Amino acid sequence: MRNIVMSICYDGTAYYGFQSQPGGNTIQDYIEAAIEQLTGENIILTSSGRTDAGVHARSQIINFQTASSIPLERWAFALNSRLPPDIRILEARMADPDFHARRWAKRKTYRYTINHNRIPDVFQRHMQFHHPASLDVEAMRHALQTLVGEHDFTSFCSVKSTKPSHVRTIYEVSLELDPHVPGVIHIFVTGNGFLQHMVRIIVGTLLQIGEGKRSAEDMSGILAARSRSKAGPTAMSHGLMLWDVVY
Amino acid sequence: MRNIVMSICYDGTAYYGFQSQPGGNTIQDYIEAAIEQLTGENIILTSSGRTDAGVHARSQIINFQTASSIPLERWAFALNSRLPPDIRILEARMADPDFHARRWAKRKTYRYTINHNRIPDVFQRHMQFHHPASLDVEAMRHALQTLVGEHDFTSFCSVKSTKPSHVRTIYEVSLELDPHVPGVIHIFVTGNGFLQHMVRIIVGTLLQIGEGKRSAEDMSGILAARSRSKAGPTAMSHGLMLWDVVY
Repeated sequence: MRNIVMSICYDGTAYYGFQSQPGGNTIQDYIEAAIEQLTGENIILTSSGRTDAGVHARSQIINFQTASSIPLERWAFALNSRLPPDIRILEARMADPDFHARRWAKRKTYRYTINHNRIPDVFQRHMQFHHPASLDVEAMRHALQTLVGEHDFTSFCSVKSTKPSHVRTIYEVSLELDPHVPGVIHIFVTGNGFLQHMVRIIVGTLLQIGEGKRSAEDMSGILAARSRSKAGPTAMSHGLMLWDVVY
Repeated sequence: MRNIVMSICYDGTAYYGFQSQPGGNTIQDYIEAAIEQLTGENIILTSSGRTDAGVHARSQIINFQTASSIPLERWAFALNSRLPPDIRILEARMADPDFHARRWAKRKTYRYTINHNRIPDVFQRHMQFHHPASLDVEAMRHALQTLVGEHDFTSFCSVKSTKPSHVRTIYEVSLELDPHVPGVIHIFVTGNGFLQHMVRIIVGTLLQIGEGKRSAEDMSGILAARSRSKAGPTAMSHGLMLWDVVY
């Protein structure tokens, strides 16, 4: 058996999220079906983590065990020809026999994109949250910085979470104005792990701060409260993209 | 009556082209229906020119006569709330009573985008023609330059054209490597008018030159032949975007 690791990307618009579920139509389902078509093996793949319905991935990492002898350099092309055009395998490599895409992940980066122009960009409408408002970008940047470090992120986690601990470490954050398109903001968050809806609740709270409904200084109090009700709303899923996973 | 001119943009993926036709589902149909919903008027709009099925517009210009007294600054918002999300009105202005979006157009620019990487970009797949091949960009640039000036473009025109003259003037051309994404090429063509499929046939011919199937020097002979059969194939529509119209 070989343990194969792949980097993949997808436009999540048409799917019910990454991870298999009873209703089907997930990215995992399509990739497992393509692998079965190719190898005859009914494998279950592991990913670096699920992404919600409508969320995209520039670089998601998956791995699976296979007895197939197909050469590594053929996997991407062979699977891509069996996948819908909004899911692409970028590369396949051999992994350590013990490699596990979720457990071995050290850092993950998400990007959230906001377009706050009056009129949305039709060509990016599935990848940008359109929120036409005047935003105090410096206040948002200041508030975002508050989250760096090890914290209990219960305030920024769905109440449906079943995780035993909500303590996570945020290593890096940044808020960047798109250098080419005025009115477009990219928020990057890098951490050792993310809770359900965590980045989207952070962004929903930052938007309230950007609009002046709350001050940047409120952020540390929201974090300390460990209560979902203290944070802002969950921002729409389509602005979110899994940007990078580091092992 | 006022003559209103609007700049609009659209993602052409889902439509049978700009111009109304018996089968419906055109961009013109949706805009005229939105104007009728808003004003009660059953107008017929004029555009700078049709675009084919799957072709996009960053900036298309339309005009129409209306008796409505809705203030100019309200039109974009009012129509956008009645249009599908892949068609947006960018701006509305008053035009000279005689202004005609097609007849008054002095220069139009189209952009055609080629992605020649091994794996397509899932997020740009509706806006880039994916053609994984090694391309001689300098040869393509040289051949493209041949087209500047006033020429009979019959070789680069659909045989279905019913235009009495195929003489058009190309003012400017350029072939630019995307500064951010390796393997992505943008071809810009500016002229006083374009024949049916003209940019797409130019691009189809440039791709043959880029792949070394023809030499750059062949371009002037293809042009001089005034025969569609001498040029390359018509490149796919989804790589094409109406970029700008100047009056």
